Amino acid sequence: MAEISDILPDRRTIRKYSSEPVDDKLLSDLLMMGCRASTTGNMQVYSIIITRDEEKKRELAPSHFNQKMITEAPVVLTFCADFNRFNKWCRLRNAKPGYDNFLSFMTAAIDALLVAQTVCIAAESKGLGICYLGTTTYMAHKIIEVLKLPKGVVPVTTVTLGWPAEKPEQVDRLHLEAIIHKETYCDYTDESIEMYYEGKEGRSDSQQFVNENNKETLAQVFTDVRYKKSDNIYFSKMLLQVLNDQGFMEQ
Amino acid sequence: MAEISDILPDRRTIRKYSSEPVDDKLLSDLLMMGCRASTTGNMQVYSIIITRDEEKKRELAPSHFNQKMITEAPVVLTFCADFNRFNKWCRLRNAKPGYDNFLSFMTAAIDALLVAQTVCIAAESKGLGICYLGTTTYMAHKIIEVLKLPKGVVPVTTVTLGWPAEKPEQVDRLHLEAIIHKETYCDYTDESIEMYYEGKEGRSDSQQFVNENNKETLAQVFTDVRYKKSDNIYFSKMLLQVLNDQGFMEQ
Repeated sequence: MAEISDILPDRRTIRKYSSEPVDDKLLSDLLMMGCRASTTGNMQVYSIIITRDEEKKRELAPSHFNQKMITEAPVVLTFCADFNRFNKWCRLRNAKPGYDNFLSFMTAAIDALLVAQTVCIAAESKGLGICYLGTTTYMAHKIIEVLKLPKGVVPVTTVTLGWPAEKPEQVDRLHLEAIIHKETYCDYTDESIEMYYEGKEGRSDSQQFVNENNKETLAQVFTDVRYKKSDNIYFSKMLLQVLNDQGFMEQ
Repeated sequence: MAEISDILPDRRTIRKYSSEPVDDKLLSDLLMMGCRASTTGNMQVYSIIITRDEEKKRELAPSHFNQKMITEAPVVLTFCADFNRFNKWCRLRNAKPGYDNFLSFMTAAIDALLVAQTVCIAAESKGLGICYLGTTTYMAHKIIEVLKLPKGVVPVTTVTLGWPAEKPEQVDRLHLEAIIHKETYCDYTDESIEMYYEGKEGRSDSQQFVNENNKETLAQVFTDVRYKKSDNIYFSKMLLQVLNDQGFMEQ
């Protein structure tokens, strides 16, 4: 197994998996390592739903806009913000939980995401490939139905996991200077934006992307095709409704 | 440097740091590895504010309830959900960004948290110690002031980083069976809660905690002392106001 400073700089998302199964013991080891991630007050306010069953994957697929990784990966992991277990413990111990609010949702979501990323890095260090599905926050209402999540539980991200059957080109990242700020936020000027996005825009795959989508600029591919305002507004409403329905918006 | 499956099972949060500085090049390497984490649509909608200046740390400390790690750690990293940079790029490229909504905030917060955890694991693999500060979501409004975060930017978590000057006992975690669910969520019964929390409640440090706080049960230490409903409600309002003020609650 390789060291972390060999793995991370070379990592890439894997969307195609071989038919080789992921061993139960290996998966347990990865999840156990994930649970060593930091958690607020050691409350561990998260749950992980493991989907391996073919039928269940097919049921889950529409919630992820039928991205093929869901049905093709041997393992699908849904990481949930979960105060349900903690609340039940409190009630059983003569303690009144006060975790039905937005701050508590954020606390639990942060917990869940730190575990998710730890599981992913552990998995990659074993040679497995992973893919995050951003659709989870869009379609939380449907995922809740399929996975039978009770009140106090909200899915925040989904990861597909398996042995890689591809080695795609590594995608670009902005220069570190574009991301970091020293002491205080140094707001971007037109000039700095030009400089930081020049490399990305100049790539041949970016230009292909612009042409394929009949757009003038790469930014328009994002705003007009991939992440449109109308979709964002619609799914924002759905997600806020989910937080309300799952008991995280009491005032 | 150790392998990841040696590091993760043995990890612990470090709150005391030696006076040895953290080299700039090492920090850059860690942050660069962090930026290889998955990001929605490769948008990289996050920023990292690096605080090293003593005066700035003192200014930041009250926002973290004066937890001493802020002033004592050589490096403080504030991970922010950031659509500001992306929005500026869009506007400069004749594209109308539609990212002033709650879904977009969650997208950016997820991005930021995956980077944060990747930086932390990379740091720990180099022998550094880290501590997450949950206070960031409580006091985002103050952190925004101190770090001069513009509209479109919300701090989601803070990490203190330095060479360890302690090796505390590793804290307990729930048994993995308490956290995972196969195919669908299997809701907890009183019996399963009893079983899963028995180990935690039986620990001598837990019992000491209960006694010190003059409570009947460990759960009451959480609900009545550490994470109280009144605080949660207050800070929920503040955080929702921050999302509104920073431009993430348009409908």
